[in-house]
Amino acid sequence: MNKIEPKTLSGFMELYPNEQIVFNNMKKVIEETYQSYGFYPLDTPVIELSDVLLAKAGGETEKQIYRFMKGDNDLALRFDLTVPLAKYVAKRYNELVFPFKRYQIGKVFRGERPQKGRFREFYQCDIDVIGDESLSIMFDAEMPSIIYDIFKKLNIGDFVIRINNRKVLGGFFEYLELNDKITDILRVVDKLEKIGTDNVIKELESFSIDRDKIDKIINFIGIKGNNDDKIKLLREMNIDNDKFIIGVNELETVINNISLMGIDENNYEIDLTIARGLDYYTGTVYETILKDYPNIGSICSGGRYDDLAGFYTDKKLPGVGISIGLSRLFDQLLDNGILKIEDVTVTDMLIVPFCDDYEYIYKVYNALRKNNVKVDICYMDKGFKQKMKYANKINVKYAILIGEDEINENVVTLKNMVTGDQEKITIEELLEKNYN
Amino acid sequence: MNKIEPKTLSGFMELYPNEQIVFNNMKKVIEETYQSYGFYPLDTPVIELSDVLLAKAGGETEKQIYRFMKGDNDLALRFDLTVPLAKYVAKRYNELVFPFKRYQIGKVFRGERPQKGRFREFYQCDIDVIGDESLSIMFDAEMPSIIYDIFKKLNIGDFVIRINNRKVLGGFFEYLELNDKITDILRVVDKLEKIGTDNVIKELESFSIDRDKIDKIINFIGIKGNNDDKIKLLREMNIDNDKFIIGVNELETVINNISLMGIDENNYEIDLTIARGLDYYTGTVYETILKDYPNIGSICSGGRYDDLAGFYTDKKLPGVGISIGLSRLFDQLLDNGILKIEDVTVTDMLIVPFCDDYEYIYKVYNALRKNNVKVDICYMDKGFKQKMKYANKINVKYAILIGEDEINENVVTLKNMVTGDQEKITIEELLEKNYN
Repeated sequence: MNKIEPKTLSGFMELYPNEQIVFNNMKKVIEETYQSYGFYPLDTPVIELSDVLLAKAGGETEKQIYRFMKGDNDLALRFDLTVPLAKYVAKRYNELVFPFKRYQIGKVFRGERPQKGRFREFYQCDIDVIGDESLSIMFDAEMPSIIYDIFKKLNIGDFVIRINNRKVLGGFFEYLELNDKITDILRVVDKLEKIGTDNVIKELESFSIDRDKIDKIINFIGIKGNNDDKIKLLREMNIDNDKFIIGVNELETVINNISLMGIDENNYEIDLTIARGLDYYTGTVYETILKDYPNIGSICSGGRYDDLAGFYTDKKLPGVGISIGLSRLFDQLLDNGILKIEDVTVTDMLIVPFCDDYEYIYKVYNALRKNNVKVDICYMDKGFKQKMKYANKINVKYAILIGEDEINENVVTLKNMVTGDQEKITIEELLEKNYN
Repeated sequence: MNKIEPKTLSGFMELYPNEQIVFNNMKKVIEETYQSYGFYPLDTPVIELSDVLLAKAGGETEKQIYRFMKGDNDLALRFDLTVPLAKYVAKRYNELVFPFKRYQIGKVFRGERPQKGRFREFYQCDIDVIGDESLSIMFDAEMPSIIYDIFKKLNIGDFVIRINNRKVLGGFFEYLELNDKITDILRVVDKLEKIGTDNVIKELESFSIDRDKIDKIINFIGIKGNNDDKIKLLREMNIDNDKFIIGVNELETVINNISLMGIDENNYEIDLTIARGLDYYTGTVYETILKDYPNIGSICSGGRYDDLAGFYTDKKLPGVGISIGLSRLFDQLLDNGILKIEDVTVTDMLIVPFCDDYEYIYKVYNALRKNNVKVDICYMDKGFKQKMKYANKINVKYAILIGEDEINENVVTLKNMVTGDQEKITIEELLEKNYN
């Protein structure tokens, strides 16, 4: 019979079992942290009607989307978790409790040209808090605490959360009477880290901006010092613009409350160059950078927006949220050798029977599982060496050998697979130890 | 601006937050039980090449599949988790450890005509053990123990696992020299419960089967008694057919070991009418029925197969597995009022501030989370009544009130939202209690 080659599409992640364990552990840390802050789970369909999903989209998104007909239906695969959230909240507005705090962890789909570190199917891990008409600024201050908890627990290296406020940026440019060029300017400012100050100046000049205004822009985005200094310097600029003043006040409130939440001041900073999603965010914005791997880019980003679901409803639904692109993050961490994937296993112990008295063997097996030990059992009709080889391959730390001797003595032989040590102990002694 | 209606496609599950919590809790029980038996996680792409996914498919599957072009690629969404497993094992054969024990919990897609209880996008929760060339029958005996653990923990009512062996069925029909009609006969036998004995006889007569053979078939599938009786009666039939004899031996081994695993005998039984997936299973087969809701049909099914990945590889890869169609199960349980969804919440406690001293408030907030309490906080600038209304709506059991009095006395006011009782306690006392 002709065989079909069992291939996986490029740009689609498919991991080895040990990698998958580490990936799932990371996902679990993220989910449990989201839950610990009182966020509710949400799971929306992967497939939606194209006109619902593309209500707001255009340009690149439209090109990347997986879209197809099924019968008479024009369908598409979700390309983020924000549009489905907007749809959900607009649809269920009357039944939801506001502020509505939801997390969603799921796959999204973008038919990008595949390249290293880019996936066409990837996990996003999102939280958002949605208000009805208004939403407390305190939620903006809480997001960095959630980011902090997650990356402390993930233990993937030192990180810094960069915080800005779009009103500060926007107000400043309004004050310079450059608000007609604000989108262009923000796009250039956003590239500061990549292209350097001189090139930013050059690009700004190409927009016919006066040199003195360019200098003000450069001074503004170059404000230095600790967070309190930066707030102080922003105030001392005496920018006579309401949006700017509101933005500085919001930024100060956020920064002060982050400090009160007890986050190490090495892990967050005001960064006036951060703009993020130009059309979407309206207040606080966040990025998170691994200090030793800035090349990875932001590993957790988000911000405040005024209007979640304007394409579906007249209700004003402001929100604030963050997103972790877990597939890309995992891939980059793996590439940079940051993850320890060699010795991971789901299994705490392996039972290796050397006789057929399964009544006794199952007694041990059941008792361990009841004690929350994850147990595998080696049923193979093979010799001792092959059984130990299996134990080594699945990276199990302890093997429990049970033969006729053990059964007659009412014990088991516990073998430490790392040291090779083994000892005979009773089932009760086995259960008292903590193996996982 | 014209608004787009925020609708969700019919046949696609999208739950309310409280329903989603219960759904996720069920998923977690299933996943943790799979892990407790030493199964490894796997996550394959939702999108695959059509020729890979459809290697084995045909007929109904082909019609139901979501298939589309993207650029030059002919793509399809997975319609089960078995084909992706086959692809994965064939592709990674040299790197995997056998027996390969994997679980996969994920969405699959079938464009069926939507009807009550049928979904086009739904979760499957699968485990399989794959052997290289051979696989111990002991794994067949282990599956019912896993099913038993899951449905005991899910606590959705009394259930019975029905067990049969396809070799017993197949060997019996070979013995009757009806092996050319075996597929038809099995299909009719499979309907016994639905259409009754008389109609089964009628349908068998329509295949031109002699009346004495039909009587033997009816006697065979009507074998009564406990599991030991049934094995004994099968042996006493003196069927001179190797397949039959092997099948009875396998069935006996499986039944005996299930008993040794300590499973309550009310929760499993031999049922000679069960055939399941006609072309696929070759040995042990399982179904699981809720005793009080037989109309729901099988809530967990599976079995033994000889050849997982014949379409991709010459390697002989026998396996045994089970699958839970979680979306359908959840929907049916909800419909039948079996699930308690009214008072569920993710949140153990809600902090309700009555002043702006967030240093103290955050101290309590952080301390609770560190103690694994899931905490929400009510930042809204609203009055007491509205805050309590929010607490009630999110179903939280305890509210922690913090105002200036509490801060001055270095305490919090703990309010039981069910009884309405409240008391002032220290933060240490708060942490000592177990609230979740």
